Parts: sequence; structure tokens; C-alpha cells
Amino acid sequence: MHIIDISIPITPDMTVYKDQPDKKPVFKTTRSIEAGDRARETDICLNTHTGTHIDAKSHFLKDGEGISHFPLHHFIGKCRVIDLTSVKEKISENDIRDKEINEGDIILFKTANSLRTKPGFNFDFIYVDKTAAGFLAGKKIKTVGIDSLGIERAQPENETHKTLLSNNIAIIEGLNLAETEEGEYFLCCPPLSLGNLDASPARAVLIKDM
Amino acid sequence: MHIIDISIPITPDMTVYKDQPDKKPVFKTTRSIEAGDRARETDICLNTHTGTHIDAKSHFLKDGEGISHFPLHHFIGKCRVIDLTSVKEKISENDIRDKEINEGDIILFKTANSLRTKPGFNFDFIYVDKTAAGFLAGKKIKTVGIDSLGIERAQPENETHKTLLSNNIAIIEGLNLAETEEGEYFLCCPPLSLGNLDASPARAVLIKDM
Repeated sequence: MHIIDISIPITPDMTVYKDQPDKKPVFKTTRSIEAGDRARETDICLNTHTGTHIDAKSHFLKDGEGISHFPLHHFIGKCRVIDLTSVKEKISENDIRDKEINEGDIILFKTANSLRTKPGFNFDFIYVDKTAAGFLAGKKIKTVGIDSLGIERAQPENETHKTLLSNNIAIIEGLNLAETEEGEYFLCCPPLSLGNLDASPARAVLIKDM
Repeated sequence: MHIIDISIPITPDMTVYKDQPDKKPVFKTTRSIEAGDRARETDICLNTHTGTHIDAKSHFLKDGEGISHFPLHHFIGKCRVIDLTSVKEKISENDIRDKEINEGDIILFKTANSLRTKPGFNFDFIYVDKTAAGFLAGKKIKTVGIDSLGIERAQPENETHKTLLSNNIAIIEGLNLAETEEGEYFLCCPPLSLGNLDASPARAVLIKDM
């Protein structure tokens, strides 16, 4: 069994959405062996949309449910990584119409985002446009993942988020697929048990040869 | 495939270690559709040892590594739930000597802790004593989990934590095994990618009939 970590490490100086300073995680030591305590403990404070994370319906839908509404099989099960590294600017329906995408699938898009080496937030990240979102909704997939901190930009009405979430499709953002080839895997990416919150950070891994 | 959630929900009023008020998670809304924002977002602040979580070596070992030191196969793979619900006070070597426990195993102990219905922290939780920890270290298991917020109490030298962690055994605390029977499962319980921190909250699930 081979486990591939496709998560972004969570650190106080990690890249955050639009490089906004108030989105940086804060770690605060509360117990320290060096200071004479018997053990070490830390308080962590972070935005629900930090690093590798899952959007709940309530993130963008007025009456949408929180993160624990999605059954866990949206995040644990067979998945397919689709290589779209040749796509420029955005993923449209035309880019995915001929790919193997079926009802109930968990689909992860590997794009040029995963190949970027420049530090800091990429304001020109490859995104999923509304035509692709509509196509995925029509296919009735379960989950879509992408290798950028957002799945959408340049669409003022946020049609991609709204189309996916209102069609019961969970969105995983902030994957790192640099070391992952196109193919079939078993995904393990459960959200924290955060009830009605709008998102959850998650550790995402792919398993090969189970 | 059947997925069983064995995690404790994370909420601001959840039960925390020794009922210490400063250990309660804090959720702060930072963007709200009700307030006119286009989306909802939340900042979450929580102790690394909140609810279902994994202890790193650095939690109790002076020179111990952080949570990302343990390879992910300590948290993802075949595991065995052992029913010890008849055990009183503590799990000792005598209670587990005749159980099937082998090198490289992930072992979860279901105890009377999972059957408790009284709210609040259980100061008399069933724990793993130092003789049992020594036995598990001798067996060279990979990971041990328990259904209490701590794996140890009443041992001022913290021999259980120190024996397990110094023998490369990861500790999962805060499981909820109430609905889980003794047997073989596939565990999926990856920590967040928190680098050198002393622990990580985690979503823990068991998979049956993969």
C-alpha cells in the first residue's frame, strides 16, 4: 500500500488566500517542557478555508447546510485524478467533456497550479469556470477537488461554487498534486467534525495499491 | 463499503480535558451572508488536544519530534478494535496479554468510556497503565487508540505516554467507539499537516467491507 500526501502543510507563514495577513494561522504555545511544564500543548487559530480544505454548502448558499451535512463517502472512496496541466487560464466544459467522469465520482483536477514554484498566492490560478461546473452537475458527481486555494475567480456571481454546492457536490480546495499522476486512487480526506461550519481544513491523501 | 465515524464532534460547548474552560474551542464568524458578505467564513481556535486527536512524540518527550514525524501509515491502514468494556479502572498487561496483538498493528481499545452517558469530563476514565504500555512497546505495534480524552491518569511520571511515544507508537485519544464492535477494520485518521506541533485534531473513521 502506497500513501501519497496531497495536502499543503499548515504553518504560520504558509501561503493564504490573496496573501491576506489576517488569514495566516496563529500557533500559541500554552504548555512547554522548556518552561517547566510536564508536556507541550498548543492553541491553533485558523480560518476554516486554510490550506487544503473542504467547502460546505453554507459557504456560498444562503440556506446551505454546514460541513457535516456531506456524508463521509464524499471524502473517502475511489477517486480519479485527471491531468489538465495543459489547460490555460480556466477549466471549461470543453476541457473535460471527453474525460471519464461518471455519476457518483470523486474527481480531482491536476492543473498547472501544482507545477508553480513561485512563492506566495497565485492571483492568476487556473480555475473551474461555470460551464465546467454545470457539466459536473449534470454528471452528478459527488466531489470535485482542485490544486488551488480557490476553485473559482473572475466570476462575480460565483456561479461555480453555487452550481456545485447546490447540486450536492463537495469542493476540495488547496490540494497539492505535483507528485501525482493521472489515474485511479483511493481518497482519504475527511473533514474535521465541525458541524454547521462553512468549511473544514483536512488532511488529504491518496492510496495506491491498497 | 461502510464508513463508521468514530470521532467526537468539535463544538464550542464540547467536553474538554478536565472541564478546563480555556480548553473549549472558540468559533468566530469572519464573513457572513446575513451581514451582507458574499460568503460565510469562520476562524476556529482550538487546543491541539481537542476531541479526537493524535499525540506527537514532542507532547511528552523532551527531544521528541512533532506530529508530522509519524509516517501516515500509522493512521491509515488495517486496524483491530479490541473490546475491553468489562475492564474496570485501567487496562493492564493482564487484560491484553491474550489478545491478538502483533508487530506493526494499529490497535483501538473500546472500553467502558464509550458507554458512559453522563455529560462532562470523566475524571475516572479507564486508562492504559504502564504495564500495558510496556507490553504494547514489546509487541512493536504502530499505533494505539482509546476512547477517552487521555490515555493515562494516576501515573505522576506519565510512564504510559513516555513508553509508547519513545517506542515509536502513535497515540490516538478521544475516540468514540460506542457503535463499534470488536473486529477488523480499515482506519482512516490522518492528522492535519501541522509540522512540528505536539498533536493534531483528526477525523477518525473506520471502514468495513471495502
